[in-house]
Amino acid sequence: MKTLYVIKVGGKVINEEAQMDAFLDDFATLHGMKILVHGGGNMASEVATKLGIEVKMHEGRRITDKKTLEVALMIYAGLLNKKLVAKLHARQCTAIGLTGADMNLITARKRPVREVNYGYVGDVAEINQMGIGSFLQKNCCPVFCALTHDMQGNMLNTNADTIASEIAIAMSGLYNTRLVYCFDKKGVLEDPDQEDSVIPELSLSRYKTMLTEKSIHTGMIPKLDNSFSALVKGVGSVTICHADALKNLNQMSFKGTNLTL
Amino acid sequence: MKTLYVIKVGGKVINEEAQMDAFLDDFATLHGMKILVHGGGNMASEVATKLGIEVKMHEGRRITDKKTLEVALMIYAGLLNKKLVAKLHARQCTAIGLTGADMNLITARKRPVREVNYGYVGDVAEINQMGIGSFLQKNCCPVFCALTHDMQGNMLNTNADTIASEIAIAMSGLYNTRLVYCFDKKGVLEDPDQEDSVIPELSLSRYKTMLTEKSIHTGMIPKLDNSFSALVKGVGSVTICHADALKNLNQMSFKGTNLTL
Repeated sequence: MKTLYVIKVGGKVINEEAQMDAFLDDFATLHGMKILVHGGGNMASEVATKLGIEVKMHEGRRITDKKTLEVALMIYAGLLNKKLVAKLHARQCTAIGLTGADMNLITARKRPVREVNYGYVGDVAEINQMGIGSFLQKNCCPVFCALTHDMQGNMLNTNADTIASEIAIAMSGLYNTRLVYCFDKKGVLEDPDQEDSVIPELSLSRYKTMLTEKSIHTGMIPKLDNSFSALVKGVGSVTICHADALKNLNQMSFKGTNLTL
Repeated sequence: MKTLYVIKVGGKVINEEAQMDAFLDDFATLHGMKILVHGGGNMASEVATKLGIEVKMHEGRRITDKKTLEVALMIYAGLLNKKLVAKLHARQCTAIGLTGADMNLITARKRPVREVNYGYVGDVAEINQMGIGSFLQKNCCPVFCALTHDMQGNMLNTNADTIASEIAIAMSGLYNTRLVYCFDKKGVLEDPDQEDSVIPELSLSRYKTMLTEKSIHTGMIPKLDNSFSALVKGVGSVTICHADALKNLNQMSFKGTNLTL
């Protein structure tokens, strides 16, 4: 089985052009088949504010009303996605910018309204494995932003970490899939206040203990849930690291957290 | 040879959701292979103004500085392009939203700086015929916005009418290509002030006479130059009509202008 990298990049790297360029240098030289999934950083909130669109939150989670969805389309699918695609071509990496709506690659279900109406938010329903595979076979790197659709004409906002893990799971039937989350921390930290307290190898049982002890940063929990879910469902490996560390991914000097079952 | 429709839609249709929905109903039911190219309407200028970005013009032509290009990416490649793709899927038409940067489908050259620096504006250099054809073979409709790239990492603003004619020319080697410009007039008008003075068939020689007599609306000249260029270079037919008329394209009742050499 050939190896496929599914690399998610998020956090501050997205908004800092020099950091993004350095990351893309490393991404473009990564040997073999690869898929990039990117978050949006804080640019969408900034533009929404400038356009006079109120940012609505419920218990730390964003409510995506129609206007907020439009800003997500503008920033994620337009500005960021296409900039990344153009920059990859300048690095001799043929790429195509995608949302889940394109070629119906990722269908989602609009989240049902219960106590809270999160608006235009979708949970992944189906990944089009053959569609994504058709680009890989042409040595073309799919670049996904965190938007999906419901086949009813609505675009939906979907968590980028989840998109990355769902794509990795779907593609693991065809490839030895390696899922890598790149962000602005060095990995999963033993002590959230100590940047250098990276746990090199985190097992599912230790993660469960950490959850019980509440010793894990709450912001990391969805990412880790996605990661372990991917491992359980057949993804070959899952790694969480700083965007700077991607270049050392297959080196002895690599610093980051590898997850194990 | 199979027939391929290359349909450009622009003008006010783009900004009016009900008009756009009606147009997409007609587009989706058009039998056979098809490519959609869309303009941006006036939404980019509106958003630029809200974001405090000055619209710079030189003799009626827009100067695309870095900030203006970013707005074009947001509105054309993000908001409009992906909305169209989602809406086409709701009409059982599999579609993929594209810029020229995606899969390197349209390479352009940044317009050289002479008396005026138009900024991030590109003239089409090469169309990837096989790349575009690969979507058509999968019954997937490419939806292009008017952005290209230079392979050096820069996205470029490119005239949507020109993109449509260049795609039609490139694809005419593989298909009997029919280029249709849909906008908010009923066709080429004999008298620009008389909405109903549509010329049903316009020959190149008559067009040249009209140019000499200055009896053609100046805004129509680039569209007509693109159209006749396409015919000369092997495109099977070129039609200019109102977006409403698309549904009657192959009917006796069709109203619009067909061009002839």
